[in-house]
Amino acid sequence: MENISELNPMVISMARHIVNMTTAAGSGHPSSALSLVHIVAALMGKHMRWDPKDPWNPVADRLVLSEGHSVPVVYAAMVELGAVVGREKDSAQVVTAESILKLREIDSPLDGHPNPRVGLAFFDSATGSLGQGLSTAAGLGLAAKLDKSPRRIFALIGDGESREGQIWEACDFVIDHKLNNVTAIFNCNGQGQSDYVSIQQNAATLAKKLRAFGFRVLTIIGHDLASIFWALEEAAVSELPVAIVAKTTKGWGVKELKKHTYHGKPLTQKQLGKALKNIEREAQKLSPGEATAEQMVPPLPSAPAVTPELSVGRLGDPNFGALLEGDSYLAKFEKGLMSTRRAYGLALRELGKVDERIVALDADVKNSTFTEYFAKEFPERYFEARIAEQNMVSAAVGLAAAGKIPFVSSFAKFLSRAFDQIEMAVISGHGVKLVGSHAGATLGPDGPSQMGLTDVAFFRSFPADPDGNGEPAMAFFFPSDAVAAYKCTQLMIDHPGMCYLRTLRSDLGLLYSTDTEFELGGAKTLAVGTDLTIMASGYMVHLAKQVVAALAQEGIKVGLMDCYSFPLKAQSVIEAASVGSGKLLCIEDNYTGGLGSAVAEIAAGLDNCHVDCMYVGKFPKSGKTADDILDYVGLGTQHVIAKARQITQS
Amino acid sequence: MENISELNPMVISMARHIVNMTTAAGSGHPSSALSLVHIVAALMGKHMRWDPKDPWNPVADRLVLSEGHSVPVVYAAMVELGAVVGREKDSAQVVTAESILKLREIDSPLDGHPNPRVGLAFFDSATGSLGQGLSTAAGLGLAAKLDKSPRRIFALIGDGESREGQIWEACDFVIDHKLNNVTAIFNCNGQGQSDYVSIQQNAATLAKKLRAFGFRVLTIIGHDLASIFWALEEAAVSELPVAIVAKTTKGWGVKELKKHTYHGKPLTQKQLGKALKNIEREAQKLSPGEATAEQMVPPLPSAPAVTPELSVGRLGDPNFGALLEGDSYLAKFEKGLMSTRRAYGLALRELGKVDERIVALDADVKNSTFTEYFAKEFPERYFEARIAEQNMVSAAVGLAAAGKIPFVSSFAKFLSRAFDQIEMAVISGHGVKLVGSHAGATLGPDGPSQMGLTDVAFFRSFPADPDGNGEPAMAFFFPSDAVAAYKCTQLMIDHPGMCYLRTLRSDLGLLYSTDTEFELGGAKTLAVGTDLTIMASGYMVHLAKQVVAALAQEGIKVGLMDCYSFPLKAQSVIEAASVGSGKLLCIEDNYTGGLGSAVAEIAAGLDNCHVDCMYVGKFPKSGKTADDILDYVGLGTQHVIAKARQITQS
Repeated sequence: MENISELNPMVISMARHIVNMTTAAGSGHPSSALSLVHIVAALMGKHMRWDPKDPWNPVADRLVLSEGHSVPVVYAAMVELGAVVGREKDSAQVVTAESILKLREIDSPLDGHPNPRVGLAFFDSATGSLGQGLSTAAGLGLAAKLDKSPRRIFALIGDGESREGQIWEACDFVIDHKLNNVTAIFNCNGQGQSDYVSIQQNAATLAKKLRAFGFRVLTIIGHDLASIFWALEEAAVSELPVAIVAKTTKGWGVKELKKHTYHGKPLTQKQLGKALKNIEREAQKLSPGEATAEQMVPPLPSAPAVTPELSVGRLGDPNFGALLEGDSYLAKFEKGLMSTRRAYGLALRELGKVDERIVALDADVKNSTFTEYFAKEFPERYFEARIAEQNMVSAAVGLAAAGKIPFVSSFAKFLSRAFDQIEMAVISGHGVKLVGSHAGATLGPDGPSQMGLTDVAFFRSFPADPDGNGEPAMAFFFPSDAVAAYKCTQLMIDHPGMCYLRTLRSDLGLLYSTDTEFELGGAKTLAVGTDLTIMASGYMVHLAKQVVAALAQEGIKVGLMDCYSFPLKAQSVIEAASVGSGKLLCIEDNYTGGLGSAVAEIAAGLDNCHVDCMYVGKFPKSGKTADDILDYVGLGTQHVIAKARQITQS
Repeated sequence: MENISELNPMVISMARHIVNMTTAAGSGHPSSALSLVHIVAALMGKHMRWDPKDPWNPVADRLVLSEGHSVPVVYAAMVELGAVVGREKDSAQVVTAESILKLREIDSPLDGHPNPRVGLAFFDSATGSLGQGLSTAAGLGLAAKLDKSPRRIFALIGDGESREGQIWEACDFVIDHKLNNVTAIFNCNGQGQSDYVSIQQNAATLAKKLRAFGFRVLTIIGHDLASIFWALEEAAVSELPVAIVAKTTKGWGVKELKKHTYHGKPLTQKQLGKALKNIEREAQKLSPGEATAEQMVPPLPSAPAVTPELSVGRLGDPNFGALLEGDSYLAKFEKGLMSTRRAYGLALRELGKVDERIVALDADVKNSTFTEYFAKEFPERYFEARIAEQNMVSAAVGLAAAGKIPFVSSFAKFLSRAFDQIEMAVISGHGVKLVGSHAGATLGPDGPSQMGLTDVAFFRSFPADPDGNGEPAMAFFFPSDAVAAYKCTQLMIDHPGMCYLRTLRSDLGLLYSTDTEFELGGAKTLAVGTDLTIMASGYMVHLAKQVVAALAQEGIKVGLMDCYSFPLKAQSVIEAASVGSGKLLCIEDNYTGGLGSAVAEIAAGLDNCHVDCMYVGKFPKSGKTADDILDYVGLGTQHVIAKARQITQS
């Protein structure tokens, strides 16, 4: 520990950078950043094994800044260490004392909160919506364990932020999975945005809670380098995961910024001089260091002894009979029935055999989502997340950032628990594959608390082509039969980004032969009818088939398009509308904002196209069967027939 | 305690009802329900002061069944106590041993999970999406404290369910607000759906955690009536909030149902006889009771000594100058600028003066959302929820159920943390008033982790008229100026149900005179133009005004409609489309699924109406000003001008 004083000049310079850049930006959170200045200097400057010139290096230790608003402290450390930012290695730029003055500007990669999408490769995940970082760190830790990588993960968490329940979900997850390569560091500066933190979040209570959750807890003074290093070194060798509770001072080093009204406020230009003088006074108290950054930062850990060979294959056409060999479901399948959720489970298991990157998480419903098929075959790549969906999604971000392809399954309804985390995953830009089962009103007896009804509107809302390369921010699949579900599972891997697969509880008949091809954004014409075309997805395709048949009896010619993927292509709507009347009827088993809106948005720009929509416009309740519920909410076969008849006769 | 044995016959009958009703339904969770049979018998049969014939009584003690899937145990108790269900008192029906056999049927109020909307007045909130019940109980407890009501609240929480972080948010909230009228009972039956619970959720670990969070913890055997009553009586007089950790047996009394593969599975008709024999054997072990339900259930507590007089008044037109007297913002307002968030804060304060039912919660950002104005004036009606949005929303459901009008504010982005809880609140049918500030890409320097971008799609997705009375499931207001924001705050009270107000960070000019009237679903025509009409909300109305002016210079006549409320009325679109060309351009500062979709859905059913949409189709980042960001995502004034020009020329 004799070289700790080497860090003193770095700490002081970082403090200067923090006030300089936030004052230049006219916004930001200097006081939070200053409370972390010693801890971040210790981590980035001396403890973490990483390469400031190569933040992409997959062997390096990682830092997750859960309290994202403190990010100026990391930018400040990057200046001192000559670290680079950039979307690609070739175009990377060194962060300098000048470039940080463009903090938060539109042409700077130094966003107000960590944003890897704009080039901050030092971070694996966007943070700023609080409480998510420890989960992401856990995902990174899990991947390292799986890969037998020596890399270690550090998460910096605010005390006020630890009020978020997700932090405690993450704590359970870290302990359950024995992730002693993850170190949780709580920054107890005692102040939130609008007030001091509650006694429930002070250092003493936090330490008690963390101990009860199973951590080894080390309480330190967060501005004392010796005790910071003592704790980090203990954490590095501890069998039990370590939580460090660091008592810190918000606005450390700058008198004005210590006031509790100073959250999220920069100093004015006028106040800056005085602040720099305050910092100078701190400098005088310290013994000077001499080492350069190159001398301080330790070398990268050696790469894993055995790098797992990536077997990457693709699924062929499904032979469900063979896939179900020995499975109690086989008899029912032989009657021609299979649910989309089961087909997904089988596909995932088969994909697991040909692609070692695949891992899976589920929130205690793996026997409902059928992630179970994968879990049984690959227990070492299955991580039970228990009933804690938020942590599950953010942990998957960490796994994805470490090169895994995580499939995250629960009921569609319960994924809505993690919509904020899902949006952060989208911003982070990693490929998390979400699977929501038991979707829609057709769930049946369990009632509305278990039905995914808002999920279509939410998942459909993300930009269709954010980067101008034709790849949507969220690839969305809503298959109507087992073949489609099986093949869409492969498509979720073919699309490198975020995906959502919506599956159904019901065992349904097959609509497609096993060699049918599917594509992202695709739709299938199942019937052509000159009087009207019904557009549907999932269960409603089966109902629509009955409608088409019934109306054919009356001489009304109704077409049917299975819209199994979003963003829906304009061409599909144009094609449907080009047949005969140009009348379209969208039917869906969720609230509004889904298929009907997608079709209407395209149709509203077309001539000779008339769109009607039917969706769940009434609150569902329990009912014995899917059809009972559809009748109840006005979406039964008879309702759709009546509506179709009315449209064709108008 | 000499009369505890009175309950024995009730316990046995309840067990019979549980297996009978779930076997009749062919689905449900008998094993979970049986694990609670003694605790619920003790609560509903002897400890809780309530009236089985009048579950609406506002003085009665309340039970929140957080683990909603166990609800057959409550239906079983209702049979024994002759309790009633029904949407109204006049049409209430007694629950009988016959009526429970219609469990989960479409024409029965006995849903698979508690659903007050279908007539289960015994419950205040829909549960079934796990982890929310303790928060709702806390809201009910808070209201009781505020009203000086002696009512007590009991929350039943599953052990597996306690993995949800929201449970721990609720624990902090209960301790912070000293809610010793709330008793949390953890049902530790050791089994989840797909497996045994983690060691992190066993009774011993739970007790440790709860103690660390600040509870007095009583661990008991949940099938021993004596220890159940001991714990309940201790809780009734404890200064400190009490958590009861009850060790129970899943499937109590029925051998088959004790198997850990039996979660959520009913017995077959064939298995039923054996199960009833198992229960009979349990009965023989017990001493018989003699009392009737009327003799067991204690009388209602006496009503509060002083019922607060409800002053219910309405806001007049705002005089912002007067409202800002002594406020440091006054000088800026005098330059003609005010944000919609500030106008909301001022309106809430003024409403607080005329309507005593109003309470407010905020998640440590009250100085950003401006709930602060209310908090300073009415500290006793302001509840700081800290950084825990899920608990905040569910606690508001409890407050609303107890007759309060809770305003729940945070950044729009952070409310997405609670989308599941918001959907459960919608199902529950109470009027929670949600306010999301700093919405949209115009937030500026803080970056995408702080911007509400999916909120419009989500909040717009709820049914427009679920009950056929013209009242939407979610009244949505997105005002463009301070006058509109002020008046929409009043409209949120006028609409008894769920509401969402979307406010902006930016200080903007006023568009409306203070005597302008606004209405739910309304829109205002700000300019008439025969070449094109721009439809916009919020910030984009201001940008559109510049576009209209710029294009007027070129001789292009562009109209402007401020769509400040959803669901948008079809008439507004028809009106806009009826002008001249029938061309509409929707511009919005969020992802898709919002205004553009709303207009397109209506327009796709109209002739001679052509809709184009511009929205945030690219990931935003930090930028110094709102306009920097809008330019970056392709929504700047010049982009809209170019698009409008192109449309009018096509």
